[in-house]
Amino acid sequence: MFAIKFIGKVFMIKKQPLYCDFDSHKITEKNNTSRLYKHKSNFTWRGIKTEHYKPSGTDWSDIARQTLIGNHGESVKFHVRYFEIASGGHSSLETHKHEHVVIGIRGKGICVTGKKKHILNFLDTVYIGPGIVHQLKNPYNEPFGFFCIVNAKRDKPKVLSKKS
Amino acid sequence: MFAIKFIGKVFMIKKQPLYCDFDSHKITEKNNTSRLYKHKSNFTWRGIKTEHYKPSGTDWSDIARQTLIGNHGESVKFHVRYFEIASGGHSSLETHKHEHVVIGIRGKGICVTGKKKHILNFLDTVYIGPGIVHQLKNPYNEPFGFFCIVNAKRDKPKVLSKKS
Repeated sequence: MFAIKFIGKVFMIKKQPLYCDFDSHKITEKNNTSRLYKHKSNFTWRGIKTEHYKPSGTDWSDIARQTLIGNHGESVKFHVRYFEIASGGHSSLETHKHEHVVIGIRGKGICVTGKKKHILNFLDTVYIGPGIVHQLKNPYNEPFGFFCIVNAKRDKPKVLSKKS
Repeated sequence: MFAIKFIGKVFMIKKQPLYCDFDSHKITEKNNTSRLYKHKSNFTWRGIKTEHYKPSGTDWSDIARQTLIGNHGESVKFHVRYFEIASGGHSSLETHKHEHVVIGIRGKGICVTGKKKHILNFLDTVYIGPGIVHQLKNPYNEPFGFFCIVNAKRDKPKVLSKKS
């Protein structure tokens, strides 16, 4: 990341695309002031947009993303995202060098890491190591929501299959 | 952080102390394998120790810490900790260059950032910018639990007062 000055303000330019993110090359105004993102009681937050999991692709379905921390000008070395998988949905089956920390928040779901398959309930926490093939799925009837925390600088995932 | 080989294993040595942590200079075996920390239903996790907030000091009271991610050999650039403040307790009133992300999980509490005072309920999320004086308090009757996510490499806090 590097800074430029434009119309009297400092903007941070992301040199590396942030994968799984929209507008990966967008200009973000640096904003280090403290702020509150109030939970709106239905797993959405005031001031946080709900977006698609990825901008395109047929290797995933029925996932929404909210980026709580990481695209509002913060200088932290990590991003905090909340994902929600609707009943029957799943993330990409993928691998990458960067690690994931996944914390179950709403309902329950399945987290596949390598040959292991974990059922995730509230606050169950999974550390997914580098290079591990993984996927999140929701075969249950209620939405499955979880935090996923990642390094701010991270490599592009390799998608392994178009099927869940 | 740098690596040494000892009795056939690779150990990671933390060059910088990690403040607010116990055993800041301890040797941590590198461990990048995926793993699950199962929630035990009372805001504790299988495989995670419950510790004091800080090893010493009279500027805080009644806080327990659980480090979920960051001291088990992970190479992530962030640490995920769960803190719980008992009724009447509080953290240090402090400031530092590194940022905090605080997410309310159990009960409710107060987060002071500069001149602002936020009541934090479930999933309310606060970004605390660099250099902001802050404190977490629990004036309520039930325990107040929250995740606090920080950069792995961070500076030492300056405690401003011994009183809450």
